[in-house]
Amino acid sequence: MASLLEKLQQYTASAALPMHMPGHKRNLRAFPWLSALGGALDITEISGFDNLNAPEGCFLELEKRVAALWGAKTSICLVGGSTAGILAAVSAALEPGGALLISRASHKSVYHAAELNRAELHYLLPAMDLQLQIPVSVSPDQVDTALSLHPQVKLVVITSPTYEGILSDIRGIAAVCHAHGALLLVDEAHGAHLGFGRFPESAATLDADLVVQSLHKTLPALTQTAVLHICSTRLDPAVVRRYAAMYQSSSPSYLLSASIDGCVQYLEQEGTAAAERWFAALEDVSRRLQHLKQLQISENLPGVYAKDPSKLLISTAACALDGMELAEMLRCRFSIEVEMACPQFVLAMTGMGDDTASLSRLADALETIDALDFGKPPASVLSDTCLPESVLSLQEAVKASRIPVPLQEAAGRISAEYVWAYPPGIPLLAPGERIDAQLLQTVLTRTGLHSTYNGLPAHIFCIGKY
Amino acid sequence: MASLLEKLQQYTASAALPMHMPGHKRNLRAFPWLSALGGALDITEISGFDNLNAPEGCFLELEKRVAALWGAKTSICLVGGSTAGILAAVSAALEPGGALLISRASHKSVYHAAELNRAELHYLLPAMDLQLQIPVSVSPDQVDTALSLHPQVKLVVITSPTYEGILSDIRGIAAVCHAHGALLLVDEAHGAHLGFGRFPESAATLDADLVVQSLHKTLPALTQTAVLHICSTRLDPAVVRRYAAMYQSSSPSYLLSASIDGCVQYLEQEGTAAAERWFAALEDVSRRLQHLKQLQISENLPGVYAKDPSKLLISTAACALDGMELAEMLRCRFSIEVEMACPQFVLAMTGMGDDTASLSRLADALETIDALDFGKPPASVLSDTCLPESVLSLQEAVKASRIPVPLQEAAGRISAEYVWAYPPGIPLLAPGERIDAQLLQTVLTRTGLHSTYNGLPAHIFCIGKY
Repeated sequence: MASLLEKLQQYTASAALPMHMPGHKRNLRAFPWLSALGGALDITEISGFDNLNAPEGCFLELEKRVAALWGAKTSICLVGGSTAGILAAVSAALEPGGALLISRASHKSVYHAAELNRAELHYLLPAMDLQLQIPVSVSPDQVDTALSLHPQVKLVVITSPTYEGILSDIRGIAAVCHAHGALLLVDEAHGAHLGFGRFPESAATLDADLVVQSLHKTLPALTQTAVLHICSTRLDPAVVRRYAAMYQSSSPSYLLSASIDGCVQYLEQEGTAAAERWFAALEDVSRRLQHLKQLQISENLPGVYAKDPSKLLISTAACALDGMELAEMLRCRFSIEVEMACPQFVLAMTGMGDDTASLSRLADALETIDALDFGKPPASVLSDTCLPESVLSLQEAVKASRIPVPLQEAAGRISAEYVWAYPPGIPLLAPGERIDAQLLQTVLTRTGLHSTYNGLPAHIFCIGKY
Repeated sequence: MASLLEKLQQYTASAALPMHMPGHKRNLRAFPWLSALGGALDITEISGFDNLNAPEGCFLELEKRVAALWGAKTSICLVGGSTAGILAAVSAALEPGGALLISRASHKSVYHAAELNRAELHYLLPAMDLQLQIPVSVSPDQVDTALSLHPQVKLVVITSPTYEGILSDIRGIAAVCHAHGALLLVDEAHGAHLGFGRFPESAATLDADLVVQSLHKTLPALTQTAVLHICSTRLDPAVVRRYAAMYQSSSPSYLLSASIDGCVQYLEQEGTAAAERWFAALEDVSRRLQHLKQLQISENLPGVYAKDPSKLLISTAACALDGMELAEMLRCRFSIEVEMACPQFVLAMTGMGDDTASLSRLADALETIDALDFGKPPASVLSDTCLPESVLSLQEAVKASRIPVPLQEAAGRISAEYVWAYPPGIPLLAPGERIDAQLLQTVLTRTGLHSTYNGLPAHIFCIGKY
């Protein structure tokens, strides 16, 4: 069968005159800049090209191949990123006002889904790795304790792997969820490659009910593509699809969907071998970097159930260099752009597009930098995270009338906004939560009072009437 | 200043090694199919490339240029289509449970926004053109009457132009809305070209508070791109942006956003001249097609305030040919693909990518077809549309337990789903509405009982307990 890309190429190479959207009419003579952006293949839902949001033809076929590849019962292709998948999955699984248990380290989209569904929100607070200041695994026991305390919870949301590659025991957590009558949604946005080659298993085959994966984060697909897997019979796929169509554009991009099709075809033919090459290259680089003297590759962290080796965490904790300085050196001296830098470490994100050459170039650079003498690190005071008191629900707080309050005067007030600090990628504050004196100190330390570091102003919006 | 496209080209042509998303790493040697889809320029939010959902750099600049071009106070660039703009605008303008007045002919996304915000929903029923069976303009008087009846309404949503190019008197409607203390959101998804050259004025300069435009529908930008204009001071742009970021992917595509940038740059330099060329070509084709004998170009419809000339409605009402047959002839004999075909007419959608050559090719084909003899049309019974009784709200109905009911036995029951028929592009039924005997007859006539025409099954899902 011709791939979607081939179909697009055949159709657009024909003499067909488009008296339909898009308005550029593939007229690259008039609009040459669209050429490099894929404009020649940008069409709409014309005869023979199905509809991503109501698939009956080529997209239904594609979805079946996606489901077969990852071992899901039904899969839905997304051009609105994992965001669309999270919003749709939560809306489908939760009655409005229903009780939801999420990791406090969840992505913003999970908080947004809670707000949109007016969820009664409960948190799992993952333990922290104090050196890197990142959340580690959520344990089945933690989930069991929380569900015993809140038996009304209908849906649990766990991020695994996290942004830093930390995996949780999904099979164990799923068993706990199901014993308590709750569904399990795994935000596997960073783990679409799981299950291929020697990479750890995907939540899709570990008894999760719903799994969301970004294809673009680790696999060869365009940015903003994702899939939503329905892996059990506890939820009607038609209901999930209804919400996916609600949150996604009704003009879904054929460029994005053709890249999903291309990615799936590649994985069907080459997935295992490509994952194996990538995994072996990671093993090589990891072996080399174990000999670093000042920089450290963080692989075996306490409290971590398992780690996805595709994420390289390069800690600067053992020397007088911080992660931002390391990232700057990598950028300026070696033209290497990393995914993220914070005081404690740099995150280098690898993907199926990496090979021995690209990973060796990173290793070479790190070895060269490591050979410089940075001296001993300053003493640092690192703190654990705790949950602020929740006074209003998210949905009440975001709609309440708000006033700006100087951060230093905010102790005792109720926040109207999120305050994120990275790391730990956990909101220090969510809307509706009380800013106590200790938390205020953490906010000041982590984010800087007079700066706009991490987008935080010197003022914080608080609920007016509290 | 370098355009975003130029910046992307410079960066990706450099020797930079991406240790960040996306996972394809722009490795087109390994993944050659990504090349035609723009993969070489597909990056993520690295240093210097800003963040579409929290713009401070190049995207903030782009938004300012967008606002200047259309005459808005603030504009927000969208990669989730007009859908994201509609969802964000309604969520920002409406308190949960607040009263909303919408045209019954609104796009699905408006219904979805009503559901997500648990709106108290009231409808404006546009008059119908009985020959074409399409909704015509909504009048300021109609809006005034509805707002007098429902003074609690806080937001009015009007589609102008409609899918078929019908415009309403936005300045008049805005005055009525503001006199009643309501905001006006105009779904101008089909009108991003308005205000350029001799095309009618855009709602952005006609006193609407919020205007959503799809860039791709008529202008040279990739499918799934849109802008949301905030045109008054009645709403805080920060609140609108917050919701736009909520409904959109947190990994917005640089291919899509670079196409917005390219489109804006083109419009700044060439917009007026390009619109003038397009308009003149439309005048030519319109003049030629006035002489058709059996097919008819519908330009001056009763009840229409104004029509966007870029949409060509080719009526088959005067001969024994229906729109689907006409579309099939255009496709098979002339390789012309139209936007939409229905029994009464064919919709040919033109865009800024059209020119005299493309429009002449359409006119030639229509003249050739018109020279055939189709005979007189059969007598047809066309009916007006009326509003079914609403028993449950959208949000109650979509979450209620549902059972499939054979369509012929459904009279008296409450629908759990939408039944759309095209035309008129108005839901015959929305969730929560009663299926009375007359409406059932309309559903059977318009959609065909034993077929799946327009996706309608022989069964309809109804609320179980009614």
